[in-house]
Amino acid sequence: MNGYVSFVGSGPGDPELLTFKAVNRLKQADVVLFDDLSAGEVLNHVSSKATLVGVGKRAGRQSPKQQHVSRLLVEYAMQGVKVVRLKSGDPGIFGRLEEEIDALVEANIPFEIIPGVTAASAAAAAASMPLTRRLSSRRLQFITGHDVSGALPEDLNISALTDPKCTTVIYMPKRTFPILAEKLIVHGLSQDTPALLAESVSCEEEKFTASTLRELAAKMEKDAGSMPGLILLGPLALSS
Amino acid sequence: MNGYVSFVGSGPGDPELLTFKAVNRLKQADVVLFDDLSAGEVLNHVSSKATLVGVGKRAGRQSPKQQHVSRLLVEYAMQGVKVVRLKSGDPGIFGRLEEEIDALVEANIPFEIIPGVTAASAAAAAASMPLTRRLSSRRLQFITGHDVSGALPEDLNISALTDPKCTTVIYMPKRTFPILAEKLIVHGLSQDTPALLAESVSCEEEKFTASTLRELAAKMEKDAGSMPGLILLGPLALSS
Repeated sequence: MNGYVSFVGSGPGDPELLTFKAVNRLKQADVVLFDDLSAGEVLNHVSSKATLVGVGKRAGRQSPKQQHVSRLLVEYAMQGVKVVRLKSGDPGIFGRLEEEIDALVEANIPFEIIPGVTAASAAAAAASMPLTRRLSSRRLQFITGHDVSGALPEDLNISALTDPKCTTVIYMPKRTFPILAEKLIVHGLSQDTPALLAESVSCEEEKFTASTLRELAAKMEKDAGSMPGLILLGPLALSS
Repeated sequence: MNGYVSFVGSGPGDPELLTFKAVNRLKQADVVLFDDLSAGEVLNHVSSKATLVGVGKRAGRQSPKQQHVSRLLVEYAMQGVKVVRLKSGDPGIFGRLEEEIDALVEANIPFEIIPGVTAASAAAAAASMPLTRRLSSRRLQFITGHDVSGALPEDLNISALTDPKCTTVIYMPKRTFPILAEKLIVHGLSQDTPALLAESVSCEEEKFTASTLRELAAKMEKDAGSMPGLILLGPLALSS
């Protein structure tokens, strides 16, 4: 008798930004597999009888291989219990969900996905700005700063990314932002495009750095800091 | 003594997908301004002493002018009370937030934004699929199917939208999808690109139509139905 896996979005970090459905699944779980970024106070909702398994993956640190996480997930579920796979933000956005779903489908284990508040929404909200604007930003796009190897993805759509009438949110930008910024400037995006670095969004250490594409790249070239962050680029109202 | 405005994301519709912070603001509100799409069970959290004001805006229906909503918001806040402006999904994504923030800033009324689960995250979760994929879909973009006049926006970035290695989510697609689809096909996006129409996501009437770009456009040309929906385009795993 196979168990059941709930992929649960833990939101950006603030436990108040969890959904009721997420908390419900955490309370009922027999086993919870969590990343570093989905840990913290959120885990207080887990029953004291449940098993907590850290499968930490944080930019720049050594972490268990994806394959290993998928195997763990299958192994726990095959014990016939309720497993929660907790992922920061929304599990469907840069959450490596595909690999874990594939492993479950192959092992014939049923699952569900509980969506969460993604980091981009939380960052914009905390900075008191919308992500889309009626006239100046009718397209919103999310990209990741690095592929599995840690390098900037090679198949960037330059035309999409140099569009001045768009808000671009870069998830996990820290390792590659100077290279990306240089590329965008060379291909025509203004070096003065507003750029906002949002770190530890919705947590106590939350920090915003309002800058421009060129200046933020220069700053991060020198020191990108160690906090998890994301970068918003585009027609942002940095003043409000 | 001015009041305070909380823009609150009500999530996709399922009251279980509200965040704790959203419910907290609803409970404490003296006045709640809500759209049709953010109504329903979510409003059960509002105190019986609070004033509920419907400012319905739903695709295809006559609705109060945006200016009127902004004015109402300012007028209530100037009574010195706690106002919640409830918006479906995440208020920062196609929520016309900019105009309402501008009005508040002008009137010197403090505000905050409480992010929510956006419809794209909820739709993908309910369809058991991720929005991004490690190899085939490292960019995720959201566009709107119509501008203020109800027509397809003219400044579409065709190169961004015909990129096969991207997941595109079209918010409010119903009025213009056949025109958009034709345009994308003419400019090189495969007519067989997987397309998923998600209607009344996370609600009782939830309905998915898995199709292709060409076929979904033909179907919607004939009958787009009346339920609110969004369309996901790209390398979607329609089978899982």
